Amino acid sequence: MGNALVDVIAHVDEGFLEAHDMVKGWMQLIDTERAVSLYQAVGSAVEMSGGSAANTVVGVASFGGRGAYIGKVSDDELGEVFAHDLLAVGVQFHAGDRNNPEPTGRCLICVTPDAERTMNTYLGASSLLSTRDVDLAAVAAAKVLYMEGYLFDRDDAKSAFRAAAEVAHEAGRMVSLTLSDSFCVERHREDFQALVADQVDLLFGNEAELIALYQTETLDEAIAEARRHSPLVACTVGARGSLVVTPEEVLTSPPVPVRRVVDTTGAGDLYAAGFLYGLTSGRPLAECAQLGAIAAAEVISHVGPRPLVELRTLVG
Amino acid sequence: MGNALVDVIAHVDEGFLEAHDMVKGWMQLIDTERAVSLYQAVGSAVEMSGGSAANTVVGVASFGGRGAYIGKVSDDELGEVFAHDLLAVGVQFHAGDRNNPEPTGRCLICVTPDAERTMNTYLGASSLLSTRDVDLAAVAAAKVLYMEGYLFDRDDAKSAFRAAAEVAHEAGRMVSLTLSDSFCVERHREDFQALVADQVDLLFGNEAELIALYQTETLDEAIAEARRHSPLVACTVGARGSLVVTPEEVLTSPPVPVRRVVDTTGAGDLYAAGFLYGLTSGRPLAECAQLGAIAAAEVISHVGPRPLVELRTLVG
Repeated sequence: MGNALVDVIAHVDEGFLEAHDMVKGWMQLIDTERAVSLYQAVGSAVEMSGGSAANTVVGVASFGGRGAYIGKVSDDELGEVFAHDLLAVGVQFHAGDRNNPEPTGRCLICVTPDAERTMNTYLGASSLLSTRDVDLAAVAAAKVLYMEGYLFDRDDAKSAFRAAAEVAHEAGRMVSLTLSDSFCVERHREDFQALVADQVDLLFGNEAELIALYQTETLDEAIAEARRHSPLVACTVGARGSLVVTPEEVLTSPPVPVRRVVDTTGAGDLYAAGFLYGLTSGRPLAECAQLGAIAAAEVISHVGPRPLVELRTLVG
Repeated sequence: MGNALVDVIAHVDEGFLEAHDMVKGWMQLIDTERAVSLYQAVGSAVEMSGGSAANTVVGVASFGGRGAYIGKVSDDELGEVFAHDLLAVGVQFHAGDRNNPEPTGRCLICVTPDAERTMNTYLGASSLLSTRDVDLAAVAAAKVLYMEGYLFDRDDAKSAFRAAAEVAHEAGRMVSLTLSDSFCVERHREDFQALVADQVDLLFGNEAELIALYQTETLDEAIAEARRHSPLVACTVGARGSLVVTPEEVLTSPPVPVRRVVDTTGAGDLYAAGFLYGLTSGRPLAECAQLGAIAAAEVISHVGPRPLVELRTLVG
């Protein structure tokens, strides 16, 4: 479950971020007016389907796994593009009613020369996701329910996730959450803490997000806190790889080397894809983390948030 | 002047072309129904602005030249994308009325592992270009009027080009044409021959297109024919570079080496961009051809029909 967005990817220089009050590496929600003015300000752009959880489920499919996606698009050209790119890789798409008062959401991603991406999200139709849009049968049928923290910016979606998590647990399934963004965590810290404690079996996040969640000084302290609340935590630590935390142990997993990092968009999403594919196909945790590293390495070596090769072909 | 199209770029294997009756390297016009079924059949795709002459004018701007573009889009999301990507690089855009009965045109480009592109064009709004859409003041103000042969698939557009060429000549300007595609030349050979003889001062084409135009056995014969009808001919010969033909001489110009050819989409369009930029900035013909080679080399080294770097930075 996530915000269904089409990415609009443009290359900018550092000065552009400054001139438009963007904080590098973070995501800002923007309204229609700012969406229009920022789009006018950037140079040539490329459009491709994105959305954090959607990138993840496409990654799972690319490994050979099965997935379904719940998120809102409208009956317009970008909505068509978004749907096509899920169906094309065999992901089921539950979009609910596409007659929405707002167009399909989009995310203007500004890529700087250091390959960092700074995101400006106009939620559009994706912001209309509510409990009645959730196909509960699809949730109950899935081994893992996976949701992006970005949904927490809207109360309706928050309720939808609570409802979906209940259905998943009743069906004996696993519930997982990615924290998505440290700003988003700051905005909704208490709700995130409560959700993790009550309903999350598997928590994804990076260093900054876990520290933001528990307001600690160090990652070690944040991890100590997280493992008290969630039985399984997968924490990416940038170029150092990832940590997998259970009540018993902390596994460190190395990254997969990349010749040149071109665009970090989708790195966390694809790490989650590899991890979830590993988990749902019964692999040990160390292998899950390794699959995550393989998928993340592929996606940061080119422009765009989704793999350009079948990830199954990268698994030895 | 050209067909205003948004490219939808998908990677396919050779079998896909065969299964869908495509001839590698060529362009087919498709109707709505086939556009829908082909789009459903391809995998994940990327959307970016295209259109042969539009790619060319963007290339001219990327060298630091000034350009304006005449072509039809509709008032929809892809039309907005197309317009944005011209304005973002400083190209004037004359779209005329955007309230059209058809959506913005698109070109489904299937890229095979050998980097060849096979195109399926749904013309949509671009097919509605007619004489009344042509901003004649813009034509008269430009040093060169440049038109793509693809327009010749429609009578209205053919008349529009004839009218624009007259205005350009009255203003003492140069008129140029690119043949675009050997299939297109086959379909309209007599019209092309007449146009070249009557109104074209600078003819662009590749080997196959010139041979198709004059139905000769060899390129030498086609060039002998072409130079009788047009005072200047620029002929690309793939990996061998290009030939520049005047009544007095045939210059051969070498290609610019490319580490790896990724996607040949836009090669001819960007060759024309470099050539036209050179010509309009007063360079000798050999240098015009060299600028064309520089631009073509840049565009075939990545996915997408337009340069990813400022071409002016590649000029020594």
